[in-house]
Amino acid sequence: MKTSHNELGFFSGEELVMACLERIRQRENHVGAWIHLDEDQALEQARECDRAKPEGPLHGIPVGIKDILDTRDMPTCYGSPIYEGHQPVNDSSCVSFLRNAGAVILGKTVTTEFAWRKPGKTANPHNPEFTPGGSSSGSAAGVADFMVPLAIGTQTGGSVIRPASYCGVVGFKPTFGHLSVAGVKPLSHSLDTLGCFVRSAEDLRIFRQAIWNVSGEESANKNFPKIGFCRTPDWEKAGPSTQNALEHARQTWSSQGVEIIDVQLPEEFSALGDAHGCIMVYEAGQNLRYELSHHQSLLSKRLRSYFEKPIRFEEYQEALKMTRLCRDRMQEVFDSCDVLLAPSAPDEAPHGLDYTGDTVFNRMWTMLYLPTLTLPSIRGSNQLPVGVQLIGAYGTDDDLIGYAISLENMLSSS
Amino acid sequence: MKTSHNELGFFSGEELVMACLERIRQRENHVGAWIHLDEDQALEQARECDRAKPEGPLHGIPVGIKDILDTRDMPTCYGSPIYEGHQPVNDSSCVSFLRNAGAVILGKTVTTEFAWRKPGKTANPHNPEFTPGGSSSGSAAGVADFMVPLAIGTQTGGSVIRPASYCGVVGFKPTFGHLSVAGVKPLSHSLDTLGCFVRSAEDLRIFRQAIWNVSGEESANKNFPKIGFCRTPDWEKAGPSTQNALEHARQTWSSQGVEIIDVQLPEEFSALGDAHGCIMVYEAGQNLRYELSHHQSLLSKRLRSYFEKPIRFEEYQEALKMTRLCRDRMQEVFDSCDVLLAPSAPDEAPHGLDYTGDTVFNRMWTMLYLPTLTLPSIRGSNQLPVGVQLIGAYGTDDDLIGYAISLENMLSSS
Repeated sequence: MKTSHNELGFFSGEELVMACLERIRQRENHVGAWIHLDEDQALEQARECDRAKPEGPLHGIPVGIKDILDTRDMPTCYGSPIYEGHQPVNDSSCVSFLRNAGAVILGKTVTTEFAWRKPGKTANPHNPEFTPGGSSSGSAAGVADFMVPLAIGTQTGGSVIRPASYCGVVGFKPTFGHLSVAGVKPLSHSLDTLGCFVRSAEDLRIFRQAIWNVSGEESANKNFPKIGFCRTPDWEKAGPSTQNALEHARQTWSSQGVEIIDVQLPEEFSALGDAHGCIMVYEAGQNLRYELSHHQSLLSKRLRSYFEKPIRFEEYQEALKMTRLCRDRMQEVFDSCDVLLAPSAPDEAPHGLDYTGDTVFNRMWTMLYLPTLTLPSIRGSNQLPVGVQLIGAYGTDDDLIGYAISLENMLSSS
Repeated sequence: MKTSHNELGFFSGEELVMACLERIRQRENHVGAWIHLDEDQALEQARECDRAKPEGPLHGIPVGIKDILDTRDMPTCYGSPIYEGHQPVNDSSCVSFLRNAGAVILGKTVTTEFAWRKPGKTANPHNPEFTPGGSSSGSAAGVADFMVPLAIGTQTGGSVIRPASYCGVVGFKPTFGHLSVAGVKPLSHSLDTLGCFVRSAEDLRIFRQAIWNVSGEESANKNFPKIGFCRTPDWEKAGPSTQNALEHARQTWSSQGVEIIDVQLPEEFSALGDAHGCIMVYEAGQNLRYELSHHQSLLSKRLRSYFEKPIRFEEYQEALKMTRLCRDRMQEVFDSCDVLLAPSAPDEAPHGLDYTGDTVFNRMWTMLYLPTLTLPSIRGSNQLPVGVQLIGAYGTDDDLIGYAISLENMLSSS
């Protein structure tokens, strides 16, 4: 986003949008990142921006919006045929903030069905035989393929960090609750978190500015965090590419003087994975109650299968309770380090477009409400990108981004 | 709700709905509880119920829905001219559960503007010169005036418990998060909680059954809770009627053998009131971002005034942090008692319809995510009802209801 005319005066909003549209014209057939894109509508917004006085931090910047967020001027279908052609009457909170910051809403990006498991049409831009990950498939692929510099996604399990890792871009999930999900189709209300995809950690500062009006400049000098290398209770699921990616990051950063220690999570954290499934399915059963009651036949088999064995309220309560206890215990973990380093995903993107990959290295952090981001590290054995994940303490999003900027610089110059 | 044909075979759904409609015809001019009510639509639903096999716990029972919850077959205006005539495409999660349980959605009840402060047309059914309270004004008044046996409300500050106290009915706010607010217009996403109004605590069991499929029968024998009388840090705001109502409850229950001790909250809890204002206004600024950006002139002056001095993100984060600490400390309080007894409101309903009353005795419990309910106690000096509030530990909703049933019986036979 360094090239916006707001910052350097190089491009008009119209030129920027035209460049994005040109790229999309060339590549959309292979990538399939977009579910709604109206060139005239996008250009009209850009021209309006060019006529207006630049005020917001995203003035003239094109943004892709996951089609799980309501937009008042574009259909919003939540990845489901139930809502084909559905036109919301207002913008989601996040889209309103982006427009207020001057953004051009370029179009809507592909989501899996209700941001869960059934994929849309999107392919991995690095190799179309592989999944881009999900559920924010189109947003991750669109940013990775240079179709748009910023795109919005949501994460309930691993729907931002995982596809960002698979597509080789920076993904960021803020602390839970700091950004309202008003106007976002709910899946699991205790977990749904908005996040974004960009090509450089530095752009996250602009996102922070646009939504929260914080610059994060204070934390700019904290260049060398003490890193806790956290294998998580699921380390045996980390494949060779992921292990190599972490090793590469660790060596690069260590060699430049960053202190990295090993950190173990308290043992009870290993139950968070099961608790996540319980909470997500129970709450999805509430949030999709209308669709389950009235449109069974338009729901995918996969989605319906999650409800075959209903979860009792008592089990759900137990899962909530143990998660709360784990949240309370996280501060001890951060007593010994500033950020955690962990896998972003088990491996490179899986082959095929039917399965969006395993959330095993993401859902724990979503449950714990922690800010987390992924930085591209190496290419794996299939020549696909693999990211590494940095996790901050609750509410320390700006510190995390500050650290990520310096760590990213070391990785890319290595 | 004891008179439904599902339980006793006395009335058909149609007869029940006709009785409600008759009462509404007589009284709606004085009370103004409804914003949408279509007699034919209600009767048609009732006839459908009568034709179907009774299955759900609310079969044929008419329910009023606060007009902040989406309904697919009734307009939903959120108490704002911005949404005049707005017709949602689906039902909110809560309404879907009610329909699945067999309920007849009788109509939409009056809410204040976006469930905040600007009142609608509703008057207190006991005396139309007094407020029914808010924001769930129509639901409280409708149940109190025998127009409907069950109505849904939401509480972000004190929008269920306070109007229930003012109108002389039972109000219940469950543990935060246990019921999805999908399809409810968000005001403050960290606080918005769905609740309900009924005329007897026993009916809360049926509500629990309809939504969570729990009967609460297990807790039925815990008849005598140990009660902690909690004056809260704001006791000086409790007027004589509220003090009398609490004293009446305390004496009635003590004389029947219930143990009541005095309980003091940790000192830092006195900051929860200010923190509540900070969180609510900050989050409302996100949740109403679209309306603030595009429809300023259709928002009330009162609503706009809350945003005159914007709250910084850092202040919001501080408020969240201290609230989290208080939540963690609540368990100590419940180590010494089973439930807390506290004021439901500062006094009887205030005079006039422009001010819906003070949330001072409610917002703390909303912030703490605790289940809470109010039982009618005495009449105050203006001959208006005054309730007393019972608060349970996090997640102990069924115990709380079990206790309330026996305590209510003692109060009503005293």
